Amino acid sequence: MLGFNQDEYQTSAREIIAAREVAQQVADEIHRDGYRNLFFASVGGSLAPMMAVNEFAKVMTTRPVFTEQAAELMARGHRQLTRDSVVITLSKSGDTKESVAVAEWCKAQGIRVVAVTKNADSPLARAASWHIPMRHKNGVEFEYMLLYWLFFRLVALNDEFPQWERFASQLERLPEGLLQAKRQFDGRAATLAAKYHDADYMMWVGGAEMWGEVYLFSMCILEEMQWKRTKSVSSAEFFHGTLELLEKPVPLFLVKGEGACRALDQRVERFAAKITDCLEVIDPQAFPLAGIDDEFRWIVAPCVVSTLLVDRLAAHFEQQTGHDLNIRRYYRQFDY
Amino acid sequence: MLGFNQDEYQTSAREIIAAREVAQQVADEIHRDGYRNLFFASVGGSLAPMMAVNEFAKVMTTRPVFTEQAAELMARGHRQLTRDSVVITLSKSGDTKESVAVAEWCKAQGIRVVAVTKNADSPLARAASWHIPMRHKNGVEFEYMLLYWLFFRLVALNDEFPQWERFASQLERLPEGLLQAKRQFDGRAATLAAKYHDADYMMWVGGAEMWGEVYLFSMCILEEMQWKRTKSVSSAEFFHGTLELLEKPVPLFLVKGEGACRALDQRVERFAAKITDCLEVIDPQAFPLAGIDDEFRWIVAPCVVSTLLVDRLAAHFEQQTGHDLNIRRYYRQFDY
Repeated sequence: MLGFNQDEYQTSAREIIAAREVAQQVADEIHRDGYRNLFFASVGGSLAPMMAVNEFAKVMTTRPVFTEQAAELMARGHRQLTRDSVVITLSKSGDTKESVAVAEWCKAQGIRVVAVTKNADSPLARAASWHIPMRHKNGVEFEYMLLYWLFFRLVALNDEFPQWERFASQLERLPEGLLQAKRQFDGRAATLAAKYHDADYMMWVGGAEMWGEVYLFSMCILEEMQWKRTKSVSSAEFFHGTLELLEKPVPLFLVKGEGACRALDQRVERFAAKITDCLEVIDPQAFPLAGIDDEFRWIVAPCVVSTLLVDRLAAHFEQQTGHDLNIRRYYRQFDY
Repeated sequence: MLGFNQDEYQTSAREIIAAREVAQQVADEIHRDGYRNLFFASVGGSLAPMMAVNEFAKVMTTRPVFTEQAAELMARGHRQLTRDSVVITLSKSGDTKESVAVAEWCKAQGIRVVAVTKNADSPLARAASWHIPMRHKNGVEFEYMLLYWLFFRLVALNDEFPQWERFASQLERLPEGLLQAKRQFDGRAATLAAKYHDADYMMWVGGAEMWGEVYLFSMCILEEMQWKRTKSVSSAEFFHGTLELLEKPVPLFLVKGEGACRALDQRVERFAAKITDCLEVIDPQAFPLAGIDDEFRWIVAPCVVSTLLVDRLAAHFEQQTGHDLNIRRYYRQFDY
């Protein structure tokens, strides 16, 4: 597959699976020491998996969970954030300014921090109470997996997820399923990129636990790495403004979920099919995942979509546009 | 001023101020009866004032407050939503599908609902436990005011807002201040509309308690009512994708706040000033508000920006584009 290194992917999967025990152990320690609530705090694309976790929290646990943009959290504070809280932050590099800052800011107040990041000697890990090693090369799905082993273990310890053992084990099989999904999607990704790489504007729509991926792909990939104009909007909110811009030649990418809010995606699909000739549905349900029970599919659906878009579709966009995904005009090029 | 009826505005202000007592009384009853948390649930533009309230809640009260898109809340539920919760919803017309549905859905579960809407005999008010009459003609600021009298009264009753009496009284003076702000801004609104009414794309940036207004104006006004392509992004997140699309001729509208996150807006301002020739800063701080103490300005700043944009700037856009703000291609034109 274009721009894909299977050995590297499988090595990454093994590295992440090897960290499962650490993630669970961190959860055990947090539970044992006690905590009142969880804060997920990060910035940009790293927020996407946290947004999904926040959605799961709403239906699965009575423990309060908050997701915050790190810089906003530091600037204004939060009355629910106390020494009884645990803050979870994530940054692959371990040197993202806001993530390091939020960890240090918490530490100074005696608030416990979990850092999900590559190296134990990174500024981020050094400022944290716990470090979960995240040693993959590429793939947002691996960020999800570590957060899932941490978060759902906490939910299970709270007696709110009796399927935990089965879920946690099945999650180890996810990377194989994602590899199959990539293969299944690759041809379509090529077609999509060929058709839309020149589009001057794209709508990206999806909601609930899929919102993070819609947000991430449109902003952190298409905007940041391809300099493409996009509008991302949730499936429910699409009908309160953005719909009016839809016309026959306007591309609308709809990311469907497999959870309770799927009906809201279907409403967009029915509407858009009547209006635009350029409706493209990204539906995780079309991808079998060997070894994952149906009841967990809605939870891993964001990982499926992430691997299809952030890996496959981005690679094909890059090829079609000739715009290297690593080129930045401004980001991290100078101080601002 | 273009498309502005001062008598109507002042009559609206009187109608809203007349409802202050009702809003406070509802708060008193909620407090007296007891509640564990508050849910603000609505859809589209009506979410904007709720998003601001949610931001105030984060720093002002330990009582948990949640803001939810109504359709998502109904589709998936929420573990924190119980018979000890109070749900607050708002719809000017009183017949917005999702708002009525969420009120009825709550009622069926024995969850108390506050409906902020025009008529007591609307479907929304009939499904609610309490009705706060919202009888203005136009002006999102009036929606804010009723929510403020309700919400901050609850915070005060929770012993977390000792300035309550002063704040609540001063809020009555806000419409005069906003009228002055409109006059002060009107010439600039005309200039902005003349300069940008033809732009094929605009970035709208702002964050924290101002995010709702950025979200609302770009989606519910520019997209829905002017069919203009926009991208809205928070000041903190702007640096994680959207910044790469900024170039000399790309318009960036920055909505600044007056609260603790203002520094994040200033960071966008410094960056954008170096890159684009089309940076337009909307700063509520430039508008004096007679009778409002400085310490409350950050709370009413969203109202200031709303009156500048949703009223003044929209009117001038309409004049320049010749596109009537009331025309819809799809919204409420047929079932979907």
